[in-house]
Amino acid sequence: MGNTPTIFWLIPAAALIALLFAWYFFRQMKRQDEGTERMKEIARYVREGAMAYLRQQYKVVVIVFIVLALFFAWLAFGLGVQNKWVPFAFLTGGFFSGLAGFIGMKTATYASSRTACAADRSLNRGLQVAFRSGAVMGLVVVGLGLLDISLWYIVLNHFVDMEGPQKLVVMTTTMLTFGMGASTQALFARVGGGIYTKAADVGADLVGKVEAGIPEDDPRNPATIADNVGDNVGDVAGMGADLYESYCGSILATAALGSAAFMFNPEVQMKAVLAPMLIAAVGIILSVIGIFTVRTREGASMKQLLRSLGFGVNLSAVLIAVASFAILYLLDMPNWGWIAGSVVIGLIAGVIIGQATEYYTSHSYRPTRKIAKSAETGPATVIISGIGMGMISTAVPVITICFAIVLSFLCAIRFDIAGMLTAGNLQTGLYGIAIAAVGMLSTLGITLATDAYGPIADNAGGNAQMAGLGEEVRRRTDALDALGNTTAATGKGFAIGSAALTALALLASYIEEIRIGFEHLGQQTFTLSDGAVVTIADASMLDFMDYFQVNLMNPKVLVGVFVGAMMAFLFCGLTMNAVGRAAQSMVNEVRRQFREIKGILTGDATPDYARCVAISTKGAQREMLFPSLLAILVPVAMGLVFGVAGVIGLLVGALGSGFVLAIFMANSGGAWDNAKKYVEEGNMGGKGSDSHKATVVGDTVGDPFKDTSGPSLNILIKLMSMVAIVMAGLTIAYSIF
Amino acid sequence: MGNTPTIFWLIPAAALIALLFAWYFFRQMKRQDEGTERMKEIARYVREGAMAYLRQQYKVVVIVFIVLALFFAWLAFGLGVQNKWVPFAFLTGGFFSGLAGFIGMKTATYASSRTACAADRSLNRGLQVAFRSGAVMGLVVVGLGLLDISLWYIVLNHFVDMEGPQKLVVMTTTMLTFGMGASTQALFARVGGGIYTKAADVGADLVGKVEAGIPEDDPRNPATIADNVGDNVGDVAGMGADLYESYCGSILATAALGSAAFMFNPEVQMKAVLAPMLIAAVGIILSVIGIFTVRTREGASMKQLLRSLGFGVNLSAVLIAVASFAILYLLDMPNWGWIAGSVVIGLIAGVIIGQATEYYTSHSYRPTRKIAKSAETGPATVIISGIGMGMISTAVPVITICFAIVLSFLCAIRFDIAGMLTAGNLQTGLYGIAIAAVGMLSTLGITLATDAYGPIADNAGGNAQMAGLGEEVRRRTDALDALGNTTAATGKGFAIGSAALTALALLASYIEEIRIGFEHLGQQTFTLSDGAVVTIADASMLDFMDYFQVNLMNPKVLVGVFVGAMMAFLFCGLTMNAVGRAAQSMVNEVRRQFREIKGILTGDATPDYARCVAISTKGAQREMLFPSLLAILVPVAMGLVFGVAGVIGLLVGALGSGFVLAIFMANSGGAWDNAKKYVEEGNMGGKGSDSHKATVVGDTVGDPFKDTSGPSLNILIKLMSMVAIVMAGLTIAYSIF
Repeated sequence: MGNTPTIFWLIPAAALIALLFAWYFFRQMKRQDEGTERMKEIARYVREGAMAYLRQQYKVVVIVFIVLALFFAWLAFGLGVQNKWVPFAFLTGGFFSGLAGFIGMKTATYASSRTACAADRSLNRGLQVAFRSGAVMGLVVVGLGLLDISLWYIVLNHFVDMEGPQKLVVMTTTMLTFGMGASTQALFARVGGGIYTKAADVGADLVGKVEAGIPEDDPRNPATIADNVGDNVGDVAGMGADLYESYCGSILATAALGSAAFMFNPEVQMKAVLAPMLIAAVGIILSVIGIFTVRTREGASMKQLLRSLGFGVNLSAVLIAVASFAILYLLDMPNWGWIAGSVVIGLIAGVIIGQATEYYTSHSYRPTRKIAKSAETGPATVIISGIGMGMISTAVPVITICFAIVLSFLCAIRFDIAGMLTAGNLQTGLYGIAIAAVGMLSTLGITLATDAYGPIADNAGGNAQMAGLGEEVRRRTDALDALGNTTAATGKGFAIGSAALTALALLASYIEEIRIGFEHLGQQTFTLSDGAVVTIADASMLDFMDYFQVNLMNPKVLVGVFVGAMMAFLFCGLTMNAVGRAAQSMVNEVRRQFREIKGILTGDATPDYARCVAISTKGAQREMLFPSLLAILVPVAMGLVFGVAGVIGLLVGALGSGFVLAIFMANSGGAWDNAKKYVEEGNMGGKGSDSHKATVVGDTVGDPFKDTSGPSLNILIKLMSMVAIVMAGLTIAYSIF
Repeated sequence: MGNTPTIFWLIPAAALIALLFAWYFFRQMKRQDEGTERMKEIARYVREGAMAYLRQQYKVVVIVFIVLALFFAWLAFGLGVQNKWVPFAFLTGGFFSGLAGFIGMKTATYASSRTACAADRSLNRGLQVAFRSGAVMGLVVVGLGLLDISLWYIVLNHFVDMEGPQKLVVMTTTMLTFGMGASTQALFARVGGGIYTKAADVGADLVGKVEAGIPEDDPRNPATIADNVGDNVGDVAGMGADLYESYCGSILATAALGSAAFMFNPEVQMKAVLAPMLIAAVGIILSVIGIFTVRTREGASMKQLLRSLGFGVNLSAVLIAVASFAILYLLDMPNWGWIAGSVVIGLIAGVIIGQATEYYTSHSYRPTRKIAKSAETGPATVIISGIGMGMISTAVPVITICFAIVLSFLCAIRFDIAGMLTAGNLQTGLYGIAIAAVGMLSTLGITLATDAYGPIADNAGGNAQMAGLGEEVRRRTDALDALGNTTAATGKGFAIGSAALTALALLASYIEEIRIGFEHLGQQTFTLSDGAVVTIADASMLDFMDYFQVNLMNPKVLVGVFVGAMMAFLFCGLTMNAVGRAAQSMVNEVRRQFREIKGILTGDATPDYARCVAISTKGAQREMLFPSLLAILVPVAMGLVFGVAGVIGLLVGALGSGFVLAIFMANSGGAWDNAKKYVEEGNMGGKGSDSHKATVVGDTVGDPFKDTSGPSLNILIKLMSMVAIVMAGLTIAYSIF
């Protein structure tokens, strides 16, 4: 391994540890009792539905991947504007992300009936089964992510035929492109899964709850199984793919920025590249420790349940904060304390965003209660106040991220404010921002476990309801489910915050790809605006900005910003409408079954669940294509027309408005959901009152907000950066303006 | 007048012509029959309510103006970081804007009963009275705007003790600051008026239509008069102040950019400064001609009515397009044809945005009909599809503005693409963008007339309803009102588009204010990143960007972009909630009156209209303060903390996301309104059906979207630029980072 220090091997080792524990938790879960025949049957329906969906989705994804891989191969081998490793890196990124989604979902669908059964014995057992099954997803994501990174490092270290610091630059910028595979996979998982889950949910609610007046998760509702499948494909597989992308993207972008920033000092360069990977590796081990601490006692209140999850997550976070200092100290990284400071800033920012999300979406606090109160004057005021609140709620997370950006930048340059933007300091500072993103995501193994736990608990509740289990079990699964709603909302805030920081890191590393692109084209120098001729290999980030005239008065940049901001809204609008259309087909199908299959509503006939699953699957697949292609094609088109300046404008515009829009949508949606729950708990007239009906309207509107369009924006802002990165060579070779 | 050519006098002359015709149309309207005693009484109620509101608002505004003027005086005379003319320019801008709003609203409130009465005779007479009363507003706005500009030009030309090209730079950058007065006035007019109108509207609808089941504009509803007052204060005074600001802002920014771009050729410089004013002056005359052509014949269909308005507007637009070439040719401006091309591009962009708005919000087209169709599955799907459609509808206007930006830039530099961003070409190109904004707004005299016409026709309908006029009159006022809805939607699109271009022009001219700021501070040179020392007077825009490190990797810029994007959402959320709260007080008051004043619902007792007016007034004044102060303080704070780089990031972020958000909100709101009207015309079950109720929810949500939060964003993006411009000296003198 040439000059790679031995400590490198900790990285693949940690990846394997993660996979090992995932395997252990999976086996442990599989050994649990699956319950009655009826419970097994329901779980099988959901599992088959979920797998049918995944099969269908992977068919589409495989085609898209083949087309894109061929295109990248043509760029690399035909036009010669790209690294020849890109098509392969792209494929592995996609493959590992897909595999993580598959395993996570398989686990979740095995776990639901077992969780219901365990909850039959005690609350703690229910929590353990659900949470450790969620941990399978968390550990598989971080394990496969870090494994892919390690493997590519080893392969490229062996095959890249170069010496010295330039080699690491080429290696890291090449590795970055495997993020494109993860991004593309995540796009389809998030958008397709998001459309699926909400089409099924809205469809089931509109006909079942509103028209036929039967409760949620009632087996008489033909869309019930599809609704439960949706929780798995949207909230497990979609969320997993989203964070897989952020996780790999942040580590790889940090490595790329580090290899560029410290290029003139080979020893430090190597450390800067390994640092994010090592932090991630240690984070895995600490996540596993945290997972083992999660337990509760019988009769635990909501607060206690929340505290036991929180204890695990916070323990891991505190440990990794301390460990970051240790890692960087042992690595003998210059300014190790400052850079560890950037890591800790990222961690803290993640916690604050999570807390803010909880404040704005939980009905323990004023904002959501005010929305519930507005239900007294009907659905219109519920919508108005929910939108108003959601928009206001963007302030805290945005300001938190701003602080994180500035402080992690300043930390990395030891608060050398005067020289903030000298060429060297700029790159070091951006490295600081990127490693803050790594810090935020370092405990992903356990935070994702709390996310994936939500839909498992939700499905367990559905399973218990459909199988007609006793009052006590329902009470317990309800408690577990309510906890899941809170962790899901917090998880969403965390996913958005980390997506924004990751996208920023990717944006910064885009310039490095430009450098490599030039070298591929054989261009060695360029002329700056003051007439100076600079060797591309030595050019600073500021030189590139000067050469491509990336300044905010350049109309190309301004057009980019406008189009970027517009893309966020357009993408949201398309996915909102997609849910509307797909839900409409579901509504029609459920109505048809109620009409044509006699005896459904009396419970004498079984509805055709599979048909509803198929309709949701087909609808999601059909609807996800156009917005997805748009997200891939617009950055390419922008690059070809307006060049690097247009692309950077586009990324900044999409990041700025997409980030804020995503928070708004997630928080409005979450608050509407909990405002309904608050009314259902007996406030403002309780269940069945006009206020309740008004909050149901809010909840229905909130569904695509928080589970389809909002989360899809995370992908949009990262994917567009990834596309830009992969297309860097094409952009500089062929842009028109 | 020194070296100012005689043709200058055309500018104040045109301003006086506008005011003369406004006076003429006003007298003409006043001579019309005001109708029955009952009609006069109702009109008086509305007029008194509107004036009471305006008095109250001006009280608040006067205080804010005094505080700000003192602050500016302190900056100028105390700290010495600002031009000593600024406090006075600020005050006149505010005064003239307020005066225009006052006259426009006074006219509108006199016109409503007279329109109703004229409609009693014939449709054409009704249209004439309403439209020409609207024209008073249009002409007063452009007349006072251009008068203020001319007066300041004369005053500064006399008093600025300088010679040569530097004098014009100082004059134009000083004049630009009077836009700050217009902006501040517009802020309160738009935000306060927007909250007022929707609090009254939502309050009146929720209790009157929904709870008590009485029709719109029923005299038994205590909030009816407040609702009619709202149309005047929001849609007449608010819209007028908004466009007054855009009108003056675009002309002044163009002049400032022109004086900087052509500083090295004094003769051309003078022409570049006069060109936007001359185009505006000729635009006034052509608008008057257009106004006189608007007439229709009895029994005209909606299409014919629309065509007669359209004819006047289009005639003015075509004439000004031709005249632009003539003006610039006669001015002997170098490259006159190309620069006239930029003007025409702005005009065309305005037309396209108007058309796109109509397509997305009129129920003659598919998008709105699809929203109406979604009402069959209840209010939730109405909201989802309306939001989805509104987000998608942002694409066309944004792409249009992008084309306008690039093409008007390229036109101005004669498509010298290779040298697109050399220092000289950049400034000339930005001058092209700014003059495109002037082109778009050149026919404001008539386009604003069609806007102000809407609420007059609406109020005429209300007057006819409350006074119990016959079936035939109602049919005619309904036709006039429906026409007004379409022109209002188109006008909103136009207002947003012009605000975006104006804000861009202001952003570009911000750099010029920085230059003047340095001179005030006595700093003569600065050092660029490559070590070169540049005299500030000779520094190009690119030198400033270099010195302040305004590049997209600078964390200060990135933080600015994030905060800017967030500000747009926060401002929207605050105004949405403000409407919710103010509407709630109205609901409580109406309920109280129904309960306590016996005989209201049977028509035996008169409701206490004045009390509702007072409640809406108080609510609006209270609620407008916080968001308004935020809009003023955030750019100041950003400048003090992150300096010029942060401010430019802030402006770009707010412009990008505010522009798109404004289109989304305006179009969703307009489409919901018309979807309801479509159902009321007998589709999807017609009035009283469940579908109708669902669309009423959409309409109620849409009200603050399209009439409060959306339009307020126009102000936000311009005002923040204006604040930045006025604070330029403070920013460079005292920024922390």
